[in-house]
Amino acid sequence: MKTFMDSNFLLHSDIASKLYHGHAATMPIIDYHCHLDPKMIADNLPFADMTAVWLGGDHYKWRAMRANGVGEEYITGGKAPWEKFSKWAETVPYTMRNPLYHWTHLELSRIFGINKTLNPNTAYEIYEEGSAKLQEPDFRPRRIMERMNVEAVCTTDDPTDSLEHHDAIRKSGFSVKVFPTWRPDRLLAVDNVAAFNAYIDKLESVANIGISTYDLLIQALWNRHDFFASRGCRVSDHGLETFYAEPYTDSEVRNIFRRLRSGEAIGADDALKFRSAMLYEGAKMDAMTGWVQQFHIGAIRNNNSRMFAKLGPDTGFDSIHDISFAAPMNRFLSRLDEEGLLAKTILYNLNPKDNEMMATAAYNFNDGSVPGKIQYGAAWWFLDQLKGMTDQLDALSSLGLLSRFVGMLTDSRSILSYPRHEYFRRLLCNILGNDVVNGELPESELSFIERMVEMICYGNAKKYFGFERS
Amino acid sequence: MKTFMDSNFLLHSDIASKLYHGHAATMPIIDYHCHLDPKMIADNLPFADMTAVWLGGDHYKWRAMRANGVGEEYITGGKAPWEKFSKWAETVPYTMRNPLYHWTHLELSRIFGINKTLNPNTAYEIYEEGSAKLQEPDFRPRRIMERMNVEAVCTTDDPTDSLEHHDAIRKSGFSVKVFPTWRPDRLLAVDNVAAFNAYIDKLESVANIGISTYDLLIQALWNRHDFFASRGCRVSDHGLETFYAEPYTDSEVRNIFRRLRSGEAIGADDALKFRSAMLYEGAKMDAMTGWVQQFHIGAIRNNNSRMFAKLGPDTGFDSIHDISFAAPMNRFLSRLDEEGLLAKTILYNLNPKDNEMMATAAYNFNDGSVPGKIQYGAAWWFLDQLKGMTDQLDALSSLGLLSRFVGMLTDSRSILSYPRHEYFRRLLCNILGNDVVNGELPESELSFIERMVEMICYGNAKKYFGFERS
Amino acid sequence: MKTFMDSNFLLHSDIASKLYHGHAATMPIIDYHCHLDPKMIADNLPFADMTAVWLGGDHYKWRAMRANGVGEEYITGGKAPWEKFSKWAETVPYTMRNPLYHWTHLELSRIFGINKTLNPNTAYEIYEEGSAKLQEPDFRPRRIMERMNVEAVCTTDDPTDSLEHHDAIRKSGFSVKVFPTWRPDRLLAVDNVAAFNAYIDKLESVANIGISTYDLLIQALWNRHDFFASRGCRVSDHGLETFYAEPYTDSEVRNIFRRLRSGEAIGADDALKFRSAMLYEGAKMDAMTGWVQQFHIGAIRNNNSRMFAKLGPDTGFDSIHDISFAAPMNRFLSRLDEEGLLAKTILYNLNPKDNEMMATAAYNFNDGSVPGKIQYGAAWWFLDQLKGMTDQLDALSSLGLLSRFVGMLTDSRSILSYPRHEYFRRLLCNILGNDVVNGELPESELSFIERMVEMICYGNAKKYFGFERS
Repeated sequence: MKTFMDSNFLLHSDIASKLYHGHAATMPIIDYHCHLDPKMIADNLPFADMTAVWLGGDHYKWRAMRANGVGEEYITGGKAPWEKFSKWAETVPYTMRNPLYHWTHLELSRIFGINKTLNPNTAYEIYEEGSAKLQEPDFRPRRIMERMNVEAVCTTDDPTDSLEHHDAIRKSGFSVKVFPTWRPDRLLAVDNVAAFNAYIDKLESVANIGISTYDLLIQALWNRHDFFASRGCRVSDHGLETFYAEPYTDSEVRNIFRRLRSGEAIGADDALKFRSAMLYEGAKMDAMTGWVQQFHIGAIRNNNSRMFAKLGPDTGFDSIHDISFAAPMNRFLSRLDEEGLLAKTILYNLNPKDNEMMATAAYNFNDGSVPGKIQYGAAWWFLDQLKGMTDQLDALSSLGLLSRFVGMLTDSRSILSYPRHEYFRRLLCNILGNDVVNGELPESELSFIERMVEMICYGNAKKYFGFERS
Repeated sequence: MKTFMDSNFLLHSDIASKLYHGHAATMPIIDYHCHLDPKMIADNLPFADMTAVWLGGDHYKWRAMRANGVGEEYITGGKAPWEKFSKWAETVPYTMRNPLYHWTHLELSRIFGINKTLNPNTAYEIYEEGSAKLQEPDFRPRRIMERMNVEAVCTTDDPTDSLEHHDAIRKSGFSVKVFPTWRPDRLLAVDNVAAFNAYIDKLESVANIGISTYDLLIQALWNRHDFFASRGCRVSDHGLETFYAEPYTDSEVRNIFRRLRSGEAIGADDALKFRSAMLYEGAKMDAMTGWVQQFHIGAIRNNNSRMFAKLGPDTGFDSIHDISFAAPMNRFLSRLDEEGLLAKTILYNLNPKDNEMMATAAYNFNDGSVPGKIQYGAAWWFLDQLKGMTDQLDALSSLGLLSRFVGMLTDSRSILSYPRHEYFRRLLCNILGNDVVNGELPESELSFIERMVEMICYGNAKKYFGFERS
Repeated sequence: MKTFMDSNFLLHSDIASKLYHGHAATMPIIDYHCHLDPKMIADNLPFADMTAVWLGGDHYKWRAMRANGVGEEYITGGKAPWEKFSKWAETVPYTMRNPLYHWTHLELSRIFGINKTLNPNTAYEIYEEGSAKLQEPDFRPRRIMERMNVEAVCTTDDPTDSLEHHDAIRKSGFSVKVFPTWRPDRLLAVDNVAAFNAYIDKLESVANIGISTYDLLIQALWNRHDFFASRGCRVSDHGLETFYAEPYTDSEVRNIFRRLRSGEAIGADDALKFRSAMLYEGAKMDAMTGWVQQFHIGAIRNNNSRMFAKLGPDTGFDSIHDISFAAPMNRFLSRLDEEGLLAKTILYNLNPKDNEMMATAAYNFNDGSVPGKIQYGAAWWFLDQLKGMTDQLDALSSLGLLSRFVGMLTDSRSILSYPRHEYFRRLLCNILGNDVVNGELPESELSFIERMVEMICYGNAKKYFGFERS
């Protein structure tokens, strides 16, 4: 019987243990996609207490608490920090077999050095110990990142963002590199014309260009894209329900934008054309600038109208979608490839039924120019758990080149999420170790396998994103 | 080497064995969804022979026999009972790795105490021994249920049913509680206008309300819903190809019903509106009455036209569908939630590709009012087998709270199916035991895990359905 | 620790080892679906070198090389054979966990007797040793097939093919039976009217019938179908994106064909009707002739427009599609069944999300006339790997009769692919052995399990296809 979360947690063979401890654990972290608030890193203020650092904004935990019968007042409502923490502690045992159970204890252990199991009996002492530690210098945001051996992170930023906090971080001499990511999703949100125009107004102001026409919109976006590049940005990201790749003409799109800009609502077909144009133009900018583009496909968002009205987006009411997108995805990538405008690309899916479809589609567009140019991305969001990661690794292995994988990311809003890299690395080493033990990979090639582990955990991402150029 | 189906069948660790024998095996069965004929329980007559109790109506076995090259005369045709049994016995070895192989031997062992392997060599002695036992008092329907430690069952009943057999059962003082379930699927079957009107006529007669308008239809349904409630019903069930949640106005639906009632065929759009209205109104009744609503989504039925014409529905010609339904399902649940009309709900899917989509959608609507209010339901029909159940448990675990799961049901037309609960419980205990052995769950929390087993096997369902109020 | 690919490769129990070595390994191979060039077998010329036999036409390897950063000049371009081989050898270690890694070493070992691991260090010696052996008589196509214990193969042929190479093979007295397969996919390719008419012109010429009307088209096809039958053909094959089973009338289809034949483009609805008619008529011919019909569903092809223009089809730019087809597939099979025209049928899917849907749909149409009449076919193309095969076997087992499975095929363009049968057989024996060891199958029925292995590896296919009649 293995002890819960001991040093060989998830490592079920000697080879797995050696691969992890000797080759994975020591690699720095390149967290190339996350949702950390750059202001938090810039300000570097201490967190008030365990509730602030651990429960604020974490919609994974909120969903679990709601399902466990905890009232909203203890989740997003006005209850006191300790009361909220207490309800979370009550919920934790009920999350057994959910990744939250492992994440919770990995975070307590790796960040706080607390190796107790969280439950109602231990809740108060853990709350007190953790909250006290949060006042120590080692628990400020930057020190947490340093202690977790983070080399670089990419936040997720709107094209209209001033990037002032990124500037402040860079000037501060922080040892961890913090880069912005270009996330232009709001350009596709044409269903609400008023909000769209307010957004374009904001873009006008930051780009210092009057955006009366589609061509000026593109000019303003290039302006911001260049600005992001000047701040070290090397990556874009897109959160899409599907790929938009319908035929359109420039004059159609100019006309659609003119109507939008005049406050007119457009129909579904025109929205599709406009989104197709926006997606293409963004991809073109990324290719011409040498960036990596990321696509996160497959969420259906804001499903609970009542709670959306109350709490807004990203509060735990999104789920997995089930629509088809193989055809438009292939069309989108093919057009770019044909025009010599296909940037390095990472494709993430959210519905595990699409693992194999997505992995094979990615490999339609590798052209020999860059190893692993088109990546089938890591298990994302709901799939960021043992089974989800295993399925992603198995699909990638069976249908592509695991060896060229750029590996894991936190995708998290929380500074405490870095142990998710450890979680992934342990799983990866166990899978490879298991293959050697079972005679499915040759022990004689162990040195290659060791290098493969280092590359997937660190080296591939370092080379692929090219942050060293910044 | 383990002996086939020994006492530790499916239990591959000491902890798994202790969890099962100490905590799961002793729990009573709450079979909250099945298709038993209440008349059979009311009459409590002995079964004629093994063929009558085991092969009559069991379309799982029929499919296997047809695929094994057995002619229809031995399946649904006129051959003698022993001849039919003999063909089934020939087929049994060919079902190895199919759940039928395990179900067959579990049922022989647990119900009949016959621990031989069924094959052509043992067929006759098993047929004789089983058929003889069926004449003993312990093999009448009620005694089988008592011997299987059944506490409560819910049958599946049409709103027009008189529930006379339920009355008879209740009056008989039978120790097992037998409740009806409200299954109003025929209200959605508007493609055949004549059959629909005949059904409404029947509803008129049992509700004693002339149903000339849509409002009177709703009134008649309320009348029957109240009647079902008075007979202990606490659960509805719906077998749907997809969710119907299209926008409609009351006046549109009134008009559609008027046309239907006058014998007029309606188009696809109007059918969708009418079904959307029916589904909503039924959900409203369930919420206002405090029932649990169940949705079984994802079958494509009666695919073999020739055999449908010959044998009718539910004869082994249904299969798994592959259409998208995340969007309408979320819309349907959101409208109810917004209006404060979302009852406790169980969502079952039939295509395993939808496991994760379904599990995450369910959790969009947990509101903290009841632990596990919206349930991602047990592996159903084709998925009621080791891999299907494992996948359902893993999806539920990874994306939700396994601990709050209301557990297994037979969904069966056969009185012999209760060992499916044992099958599920063994699998559940093995999974949890395995996690402890592997260090993925803490041995120090074993008492919680033991309680979790008891809750999933019995306690959660008991609390969730609230049958004790009857 | 097991040695890589030792004699018990993939066999993790004594029973598995005994099942494989005692019952699977010795069975002849019936490769009932492949893409070997019959001319190659007829000519029986030696291969020039390892590059010619191993890399020419193998788009699995090409995709891996492109993804590994190898330029097209080393893949389909003009580089010298050794240079190309060298780039492949560099890529091989990067394919670890991809089936290519196992296939590569199985083929080196089983065909060439080379038991080294291929990597840059061993590349030259392996290239030299293999290329030298290829000049020996035992390495000519026919001897390879004989050495691999092949009993029969079915190539894949267009209805317009003269089958002259099949004639030559038959006359040569080659011990392996080589049959053609009827693959009429080009009859559905009505999007390009000019190419379609050129094809019909060719059909006119080989059938010696002027095809001015739809009825003459059917007559010409019957003529060719009879010709294929006279050459031993017993199998048809169809590579489809989906099933076409829309309602049409004969007069509509006659009119559509008339317009096509006059060079007129037809709309999407008419294309669907025409394809539905073609698919039905082909299925009817197969049924009336007593053939087996095969359907390969679920690829999205030629996704990379740039490379399609450069290299044409089947060059590594196809991937897995994600559209729904349960409804038309069931409709298609039901119509045939209703009319007494449903031939023995094998249904293959490419997206693993459809495994269970497909397996259950197949079993809607088993009618007791032939054991395993409607087959859920082997893991195909991208799914021909350990996980893909395991998933197919598990879905088939859980939802149907594994025992009646006609087993594996290479589906390959390469004469070196026969070890894929060994790969499958090892996996199958391991799964069954594992079930016995775990107590999920009874050891007392081992002789049945042994026979089941022999049947799945050989006996079922032999009986099902009925090649012995030729």
